[in-house]
Amino acid sequence: MSDATVTDLYEVTMAMSYLREGMTEPATFSLFVRALPPDRGFLVSAGLDSALDFLSAFRIGDQDADAFAAALHRPRRALAPLRGLEFTGEVRAVPEGRIVLAGEPLLEVTAPLPQAQLVETYLLNQLSHQTAIASKAARCVLAAAGHPVVDFSLRRTHGTAAGFQAARLSAMVGFTGTSNVAAATAVGVPAVGTMAHSYVEAFGSEEDAFRAFARAHPGPVTLLVDTYDTEAGVRTAARVLRDLDRGPGSAIRLDSGDLGALAIRARGILDCAGLPDVRIVASGGLDEYAVDQLVRSGAPIDLYAVGTRVGVSADAPYLDTAYKMVEYGGRPVMKLSSAKVTAPGRKQVFRRPGYADVIGLRGEPPPSGGRPVLETVMRDGRRTDAPFALEQARARFTADLHELPRAAVRVRDPVAPRAVASERLTALAAQVRHRIGEENLPPAAAWRRRHEQTT
Amino acid sequence: MSDATVTDLYEVTMAMSYLREGMTEPATFSLFVRALPPDRGFLVSAGLDSALDFLSAFRIGDQDADAFAAALHRPRRALAPLRGLEFTGEVRAVPEGRIVLAGEPLLEVTAPLPQAQLVETYLLNQLSHQTAIASKAARCVLAAAGHPVVDFSLRRTHGTAAGFQAARLSAMVGFTGTSNVAAATAVGVPAVGTMAHSYVEAFGSEEDAFRAFARAHPGPVTLLVDTYDTEAGVRTAARVLRDLDRGPGSAIRLDSGDLGALAIRARGILDCAGLPDVRIVASGGLDEYAVDQLVRSGAPIDLYAVGTRVGVSADAPYLDTAYKMVEYGGRPVMKLSSAKVTAPGRKQVFRRPGYADVIGLRGEPPPSGGRPVLETVMRDGRRTDAPFALEQARARFTADLHELPRAAVRVRDPVAPRAVASERLTALAAQVRHRIGEENLPPAAAWRRRHEQTT
Repeated sequence: MSDATVTDLYEVTMAMSYLREGMTEPATFSLFVRALPPDRGFLVSAGLDSALDFLSAFRIGDQDADAFAAALHRPRRALAPLRGLEFTGEVRAVPEGRIVLAGEPLLEVTAPLPQAQLVETYLLNQLSHQTAIASKAARCVLAAAGHPVVDFSLRRTHGTAAGFQAARLSAMVGFTGTSNVAAATAVGVPAVGTMAHSYVEAFGSEEDAFRAFARAHPGPVTLLVDTYDTEAGVRTAARVLRDLDRGPGSAIRLDSGDLGALAIRARGILDCAGLPDVRIVASGGLDEYAVDQLVRSGAPIDLYAVGTRVGVSADAPYLDTAYKMVEYGGRPVMKLSSAKVTAPGRKQVFRRPGYADVIGLRGEPPPSGGRPVLETVMRDGRRTDAPFALEQARARFTADLHELPRAAVRVRDPVAPRAVASERLTALAAQVRHRIGEENLPPAAAWRRRHEQTT
Repeated sequence: MSDATVTDLYEVTMAMSYLREGMTEPATFSLFVRALPPDRGFLVSAGLDSALDFLSAFRIGDQDADAFAAALHRPRRALAPLRGLEFTGEVRAVPEGRIVLAGEPLLEVTAPLPQAQLVETYLLNQLSHQTAIASKAARCVLAAAGHPVVDFSLRRTHGTAAGFQAARLSAMVGFTGTSNVAAATAVGVPAVGTMAHSYVEAFGSEEDAFRAFARAHPGPVTLLVDTYDTEAGVRTAARVLRDLDRGPGSAIRLDSGDLGALAIRARGILDCAGLPDVRIVASGGLDEYAVDQLVRSGAPIDLYAVGTRVGVSADAPYLDTAYKMVEYGGRPVMKLSSAKVTAPGRKQVFRRPGYADVIGLRGEPPPSGGRPVLETVMRDGRRTDAPFALEQARARFTADLHELPRAAVRVRDPVAPRAVASERLTALAAQVRHRIGEENLPPAAAWRRRHEQTT
């Protein structure tokens, strides 16, 4: 079975019906985030690279079709129309690393209707997850205010693949390393980390442990000082580092307790011991809120290691993403059901200074000062974008971040800029709403809707 | 590279030091959840199968060792002691599907110290993630109070592998199907689902869409009725189902709005149309809280489809798991730093009626009425457990659930039973604490600790 089966059964039932009805005209689906979670002033687009890899390889092989038939309790021949189907469409998308706002398409797929439908599940999965994590990690970088931040999350992410993504996405927004060797190797970032409490416990004493560690590892070392009593641990670490002349580049790590207060005391002990170059690393349940507080308090912490809460985006572990058909066979469409109205038509996002973004129709002239955000990244089922490069994605993020209003980059109670619809998009939405209302609603409901529109 | 590299760098640095120091005596590490998240009255043990698969295959190959060397900026030869290292240890664990409480080991590894250390990251990842999701899904089953529940989560889980796990784990606690074809095939559960709003929009009218769907799919169908106006949609669905004589086994799906109120109206419309057999499916942002409310309100909903919030365990997306060394070379050890004290020694959990669990030492006689919960599942690096079978795990969960106190199974404000330490474990902890205190603390800190112990 190929990844083509990583699709929800309803995509298959719909595709079968479309093929039966000859409904294979081009459809455009728009993937966007309806609303930002609380405490998000912006999102960082991510997931495109794996989404495009999926689309490039998409082909319903015989085994895939058999799996569909089995799931539907249908004979194998019922799936004949889907066998061999590939993705031949066009994709326009926001490059990874760029900042996006609520309602702005992250990606638009235009392809024969059955194809565009079958890829929904996978695309939503990749973009929802990765955008959520990249956005969370970005907030840690903001909170750290210039201090380096590293990723310690893999041990509690949702599986190991999610841990790899946490390493990749956090590096994309500026983290300087990850704890996991496989993830570091895959992503091409430094692996970081030294010892656990269990290491210290395995020796007769903390000092024995520190000395043994230094024996095994030439050069700078990081010593974990809070296994028993943190202040005593710092003194022991200072003694060992001084004795061995291993101060410069070395560090101590604080992993529990009042990190701000302990860092102040540790700094004092290290300085008095003549070790002003020994850095202080903080870890242990940190996220952007905790880092922000420590940085604001002026704690003498040199590097922040954030883990679980960032790797799972604990306060917003999912995004309110949608993959909605906005055009079929040249006809703009929209959904009207309560609270989930979608805007019709193929779109473009025009970014104006200060994030006064305008969501318009594809092909409409940019508003004054507006630059298009969506780019064509796939044509005829083939990628046309440059291969993903971490450095370029990071550069895009940094450039976009620089332009964000201050209220949006606050860690607490940020205010997200709001994109507005262009006049043409607004007019199209009104027109489609009217048309659908006339066609599908019973007279009373149609009247209600018209009435709501005009009041 | 093999999965052996899915380890944090600090596991490697520690293992290198242990090997250098000749510290290869058996160590026991205990993996447990320190405290339950809010709104959890119990946890469902999960993740063991993939953890044991990992341990069975664990071997540091040449490429793995090279990756470690690169990560450490060390010459290849520095990693020679790790090359070819396999996992040869013993694992005792709680079988998947069983209920566990805070502080109770989910798993204990006993192996030569470097091995036991190197596997930490992967084991934590699997057990943390899977136990979190299984526990969340179990709450949905409780909330549904006998109504079937299905999993619609893959589109927003943290990657597709996490979606597969959501399907597997929800099936383990009683879900009756999943939306995703690949996941359903892998797990061996029914795939479920029919149409999206976009399907309805692609046709000229809702009625055209419903009729086309029925043409493509013989037998019962599920029609999504809330694309435009829900009540009008239900009437249209009723007309189509009656015209085509497709009522029995068919269903309508409500995906937005006030699901309870809409279900009541839909039930009325369907009954009046002579379609009492047509079922009502509810979906759209549901979790156990929403299902609980709908069930309590008496809403005539026959099947609940829960998605994103369950697949990511939105209110508790991670567990406070720890993997702590509790014994090395026959000597019990523990960590004393603030707020994270661990109990020393190899353990067993004795379950007594009403979940009056006792955490004792391995080998101590069971307390009256207590039955051991941890089983030996791996010896000498080879699995000794029965192959994972969904039905058996589900049976274990059902049996354990049956015995849980009512306060623990409440969806809102549950009260988790609390395991207590046996007298022997308590005595051992006091003894180890005293020994460590004498060895590692400066006099004042040692006095403080002793004082705290006795007051």
